[in-house]
Amino acid sequence: MTFRHFPLSDIHTIAIVGLGLIGGSVARGLRHCEFEGSLIGIVENESDRAQALELGLVDHCHTAISENIAHADLIVVAVPPGAMPVVLTEIATHRHGDAIVTDTASSKTGVIAAAQQAFDSDALARFVPGHPIAGTENNGLDAGFATLFQKRRTILTPTPDTLDDALSCVAALWRELGADVITMTAEKHDDVLAATSHLPHVLAYTLVDTLVGMNESADLFSCAAGGFADFTRIASSNPALWRDIISANRRPVLRMIDEFMAHLTQVRDAIELKDDIHLEACFARAKAARDDFIRSQQTKEDS
Amino acid sequence: MTFRHFPLSDIHTIAIVGLGLIGGSVARGLRHCEFEGSLIGIVENESDRAQALELGLVDHCHTAISENIAHADLIVVAVPPGAMPVVLTEIATHRHGDAIVTDTASSKTGVIAAAQQAFDSDALARFVPGHPIAGTENNGLDAGFATLFQKRRTILTPTPDTLDDALSCVAALWRELGADVITMTAEKHDDVLAATSHLPHVLAYTLVDTLVGMNESADLFSCAAGGFADFTRIASSNPALWRDIISANRRPVLRMIDEFMAHLTQVRDAIELKDDIHLEACFARAKAARDDFIRSQQTKEDS
Repeated sequence: MTFRHFPLSDIHTIAIVGLGLIGGSVARGLRHCEFEGSLIGIVENESDRAQALELGLVDHCHTAISENIAHADLIVVAVPPGAMPVVLTEIATHRHGDAIVTDTASSKTGVIAAAQQAFDSDALARFVPGHPIAGTENNGLDAGFATLFQKRRTILTPTPDTLDDALSCVAALWRELGADVITMTAEKHDDVLAATSHLPHVLAYTLVDTLVGMNESADLFSCAAGGFADFTRIASSNPALWRDIISANRRPVLRMIDEFMAHLTQVRDAIELKDDIHLEACFARAKAARDDFIRSQQTKEDS
Repeated sequence: MTFRHFPLSDIHTIAIVGLGLIGGSVARGLRHCEFEGSLIGIVENESDRAQALELGLVDHCHTAISENIAHADLIVVAVPPGAMPVVLTEIATHRHGDAIVTDTASSKTGVIAAAQQAFDSDALARFVPGHPIAGTENNGLDAGFATLFQKRRTILTPTPDTLDDALSCVAALWRELGADVITMTAEKHDDVLAATSHLPHVLAYTLVDTLVGMNESADLFSCAAGGFADFTRIASSNPALWRDIISANRRPVLRMIDEFMAHLTQVRDAIELKDDIHLEACFARAKAARDDFIRSQQTKEDS
C-alpha cells in the first residue's frame, strides 16, 4: 500500500460502480498513485466489461452489483444521477458492514435523499456524498485519464449522520488523486453548481439550439469563430447525461435561470434604451470578475 | 512588391487607421507576407505612436489623420465602431481620389450609413465594407499577430455603389493575409454576427455579472471549473469596445436576445414540467450542430 494519506491505509479493496469519464479517471488515478490493493469495476454490459479489463482499468469487472462487492472497503459510485437510487439500493444489500460508500454526482441533496431511502443508519453513517469538480465534454470508458482531478476541487457534503472517519477516508482518497478537498452543505453545493455549471450548460445548449432553429442556420455556423467554439464547448456534452444532471438539480437550476433571465432582461433594456453606462458597467464588472477567476486558476496551476 | 494576389500590384502605400488587435495584426500580416511598399499608421496618442514605431508595426506613424494619408492607395480603418463616423469624415477630406477605403467593424449597416454621410459618390464607389471574423479577448498595440486572419473568414459587404475593382483589391488584401473571403449583404452580415458573436458576448457577460451580484459570489468562482472558464472567455473582452459593438448592431442583437429568451423560456418550462423528452431533444440537437461545427472548423485547419 503506497497511499500517502493515512486514513486510506485500511483500504485494501476499492469498488468503482460506473467506469465512465469520472469512474474511469478514479481507476486510472489509483493506478497512477500506485494503489496496490484490488480494484473492482461494475459496468453496464458485457462489451464494457471486456473493454474495461482490456484497458486495465480494474482487476475484476462485473456487469451487476452482487456479492462481488462484499469485499470492498470503499465503494465509489460514479453512475449518472438517474441510476443512483437503484445502485444505492443494490449496494445496501451487498456491502459489508464497515464499507465506506461515496458518490460523484453533481447534485447532492437528491443523492442524500436516495441514500436515506436505500441505507439503514449504519450504512448512512458510512456514506460520504461527494463531487469532483472536473470533467470534459467527453464520456465513456476511454475518456478518462489519471490526472483529471489534479489541482481540481472535490466538494464533500457530509450530513449530520456522516462519521468523521468515513469523511476522512473519502477526503484522503481525493487528495491521493491530487484534488483539493473542501466541504460544504449539500444545499450550498447544489446552488453553487447550478450557478457555475448547470446554468452555463443550459445556456450553451439553448444558444446552439436557437441557431439550429433559424433560417439559413448553415450560414450562421459557417461564419462562427473561436469565441463561439469556446462558448459552446459544453454544448458538446452528452445530452442524456445532462438532462439527468439538470433534472436532479431542478429547483436550484430553475432559480438560477430566473435570476439570469432577470439580469438578461435588464441588459436587453439597456441596449434598447441606449443606456451605454449601464451596459458598460455590467460588462466591466463581468470582465473584472472573470479576469480574477482566471488569475486564481493560474495560481492554482502554478502551485 | 511580392503580393501573390494580382489586384494588389497597384498598391504601394497602405494606411492603417487604428493599430489595436485587428489593425496591428493587419500590419504584422503585411510584413509577414513581405509587402515591400510603405505602411502608414494612425493611432490615438503620442505614446501609442512611439510604441507602434518601436514594435516596427509601420514605417510612419501619426496621431491624427491629415495630408499624411494623401499618398495611401489603400486605407484600412480598424477603429472601434463609435469612432467610425469621425474617422470616415477625416478620410473623406484627406484621401486622394483613387484611394480604396475598407473597414473592419463588426456591424456593417451602421458603417455603410456613416460612409454615405461622409463620402461623395466617387469615394463611396471605392469604399468596401469588410469584417474579418477573427479576434481574441485581448486588445491593444501588442495584442496582434501576423497569423490572426489565417484560415479565418473575412466577410465583405459591398453595396450597389461599390466598384468591382475596389472589391477585388480588398478581397486580395485579405487573401494575402490568409483569410477565406466571402461576400454577403450588410443586413445578412449583421444578423449572422448578432447570432454567432454579439449574443454569445452578451450572455457570457450577463452570466458572470449575475454571479457577481449573488451572495457568497467568491465561493461560486472558487468552485468553478474548466467548462466555466471556456464559456466565459469572451467575458474577458474589452467592456467599452463591446458596449460599442453591441450598440452599433442594436436591432439585430435585440432580435437575437428575444429569440434566445423565447427558447430559454421553453427550456425552463421543460425543466419545471419534468419534460425530459423536450429537454434531451434540445440538448441533442445542440450537440449534433456543435459537433458538426467543430468538425468543419478542423477540416479548415487541416486544409
